[in-house]
Amino acid sequence: MDEPFETIAIVGIGLIGSSVAHAARASAGTTKVVGYDLSADVRAEALRLGVIDEAADSLENAVAQSDLVVLSTPVGAIGKILPQLASAKAGTVVMDVGSCKGSVIEAAQGLPDSVHFVPAHPVAGTEHSGPAAGFATLFRNRWCIITPMERSDEAYGRSLARVDALWRAFGSDVVQMDAKHHDLALAVTSHLPHLIAYTLVGAADDVESVNEAEVVKYSAGGFRDFTRIAASDPIMWRDVFINNKEAVLEVLGRFSEELAVMQRAIRWGDGEALEKAFARSRGLRKAIIEAGQESAEPNFGRDKKG
Amino acid sequence: MDEPFETIAIVGIGLIGSSVAHAARASAGTTKVVGYDLSADVRAEALRLGVIDEAADSLENAVAQSDLVVLSTPVGAIGKILPQLASAKAGTVVMDVGSCKGSVIEAAQGLPDSVHFVPAHPVAGTEHSGPAAGFATLFRNRWCIITPMERSDEAYGRSLARVDALWRAFGSDVVQMDAKHHDLALAVTSHLPHLIAYTLVGAADDVESVNEAEVVKYSAGGFRDFTRIAASDPIMWRDVFINNKEAVLEVLGRFSEELAVMQRAIRWGDGEALEKAFARSRGLRKAIIEAGQESAEPNFGRDKKG
Repeated sequence: MDEPFETIAIVGIGLIGSSVAHAARASAGTTKVVGYDLSADVRAEALRLGVIDEAADSLENAVAQSDLVVLSTPVGAIGKILPQLASAKAGTVVMDVGSCKGSVIEAAQGLPDSVHFVPAHPVAGTEHSGPAAGFATLFRNRWCIITPMERSDEAYGRSLARVDALWRAFGSDVVQMDAKHHDLALAVTSHLPHLIAYTLVGAADDVESVNEAEVVKYSAGGFRDFTRIAASDPIMWRDVFINNKEAVLEVLGRFSEELAVMQRAIRWGDGEALEKAFARSRGLRKAIIEAGQESAEPNFGRDKKG
Repeated sequence: MDEPFETIAIVGIGLIGSSVAHAARASAGTTKVVGYDLSADVRAEALRLGVIDEAADSLENAVAQSDLVVLSTPVGAIGKILPQLASAKAGTVVMDVGSCKGSVIEAAQGLPDSVHFVPAHPVAGTEHSGPAAGFATLFRNRWCIITPMERSDEAYGRSLARVDALWRAFGSDVVQMDAKHHDLALAVTSHLPHLIAYTLVGAADDVESVNEAEVVKYSAGGFRDFTRIAASDPIMWRDVFINNKEAVLEVLGRFSEELAVMQRAIRWGDGEALEKAFARSRGLRKAIIEAGQESAEPNFGRDKKG
């Protein structure tokens, strides 16, 4: 790609940060990755695994030698880190990869114009965490949403274009939108599903006469589909819900309303209403498969056919 | 296996019925499969696909020539079919494969002792329906729950043992329990997850400012995990909720309570409570993987690693 980021700093070396490191080296012309993480163990592990080329002993140190600073910590930490980047050398591009954007943009208002902050959100992930979980193709055929700062200077525009090109080099489709719309769309497609999955797994623990061994045994009946996303990093998700409170509560309200309608239909034995509600979801599933966001294999292909 | 069922009748030729046909031929010594379905199209398709060897033109006809009658219709139809089996030849074994057992056992109370009804529930499935969806290994490494009728005569005990052996021949682990416990355990591990998945998919349709194209695009953020089970057969699931009303409403109450607690924690910004609630679900996920009921691959292996 044109104007690659030759040296990048990964701040927060988890699933996303380590995947960015792998992808940048593999397909975006990056030649050096400096890593920083609050945990010295994580820094050492990332170095040992070859995820990063150098472990920085401070944030300042990591930032000083890099063209691009990737903030891949839980969202709650970004508000604390951004003020420390105000003194970065002019033209430094800073990109976060968090799952909510409104709170991050608010925290970035205090940065000088010499620092080019580009909020980005790759809609990709797995249920695994930590520096060993990353891989170069995580972002391939996934969407990356960029929610630019409100500034129209040419220098910022150029940095924005470089970040856009970076994600395309990773194999992502890139779209730009405003942060408020992002936060609502992701509350629907990601945050609410995670909250519901966590809640369902929690509720299963709560039925005294059905023990955990039974929940495990009969999980193939549907329950196991929820446990994957409910195994995601608790700290990351805590921060998402705290930082996207308004949109999450809004879509949660819709969900609860719909659930009450279902509950009443069951109580009244209204089979027609249930069947109608159930039937409309098949079209959405088909559209997701056709858009390449899912596998059409039964059970995602996890059960091998004979 | 000893005493195989040489000729079996499949009544209702969908995912489960056709999988039983394949599995019985492949591993349980069955030499002839007679099929009956209310839909003439389904009968013809099943015959064309080789799922069944002969299409019967009536239920009576299918039952008359078979050692084992498999009722694999939606649960709501079983109550209508059972009385028609009262005149089956002495010693005919009838097995249903429905997802709730209390209502089925109640419907079977009127059968004469000469008909041996064995309620069974294989905890297996995919999101696909119809005679083309079945395959011989669907039940392998899955649990099959048998909830026997309350009768202690030796002839019935022998039929029970043959059905038990049939599922073991299919590769299933077999467990016996009473119907009431079954219905509660499955409400937790299967029925509630399906209801929640249907509800979530329905609620996503309801947020005006986020259109369906966006839901499809960003579904990899978590939403797509729910769409698989929400694509399951609407009529089958309508019948499950109508026939297991009591247990479903019970576990739904627990879920709603837990969801209200989560909602309040988000509204209050109580990060500690959220993190604690999220953290406890990882153990359950791990137990499900260790029990062989799930793949440990990230995203079930549906995203290929580079």
